[in-house]
Amino acid sequence: MLGELDHVGVAVADVEAALYVWTHILGLRVVHDEHVAEQGTRVIFLEGANMDIELLVPLGPETPVGKFLTKRGPGIHHLCFVVDDLEAALAEAKAKGLELVDEVPRIGAKGKRLAFIHPKSVHGVLIELCERHS
Amino acid sequence: MLGELDHVGVAVADVEAALYVWTHILGLRVVHDEHVAEQGTRVIFLEGANMDIELLVPLGPETPVGKFLTKRGPGIHHLCFVVDDLEAALAEAKAKGLELVDEVPRIGAKGKRLAFIHPKSVHGVLIELCERHS
Repeated sequence: MLGELDHVGVAVADVEAALYVWTHILGLRVVHDEHVAEQGTRVIFLEGANMDIELLVPLGPETPVGKFLTKRGPGIHHLCFVVDDLEAALAEAKAKGLELVDEVPRIGAKGKRLAFIHPKSVHGVLIELCERHS
Repeated sequence: MLGELDHVGVAVADVEAALYVWTHILGLRVVHDEHVAEQGTRVIFLEGANMDIELLVPLGPETPVGKFLTKRGPGIHHLCFVVDDLEAALAEAKAKGLELVDEVPRIGAKGKRLAFIHPKSVHGVLIELCERHS
């Protein structure tokens, strides 16, 4: 079912300090910076050699990422894998007993269609599915 | 500094149930299974399209992964990036102010040389550095 890993989502509290480490020290380059209003999140994509890092910055404490930070602190938030056909992958995941966060795809950063599988179905790992880069 | 993402480490509590999800449902294939006695961990590598998933199974509650599970529960544990020269990367990371878990490389699964950077230096993300697959 899973294609390539597209990106790893990382929840950050202090965006300027985290950006400094990922860019000036670890050497990744910012390639996209967007406010996704629907999710209350600023997303900053950093280009890695074979996948990207997506920094997730909450726009308020009651947003999904804000609640994650309150509960878990900053750190790795999810893994996003490419699938060929998002509807087909969701149908397969559901048929095989996985609980979906998104029963139908929604639009995220970069206008991409995506959906999340609930982490309790994957032993604590939040998995996002997305279609290939346009 | 960082090359390709080699693998994502995932701490698991119920190894058989987690393996079922990652292989039978998500479709990854087991390519390596080893007890790393020094770390008190069984590591199971699952081959993804452009990187691997490394399931980390503690061999006891007082091991590093056992303590992680007690504190955080099952889930994503670390990101491992390839570097060209491990000693040079560690020296650069240290010179740039990152705190190292391993000041000198150690041997992990598959006999590979690796070292960890402390997550407090990378805003909650535990980063492993390793040299290219042999």
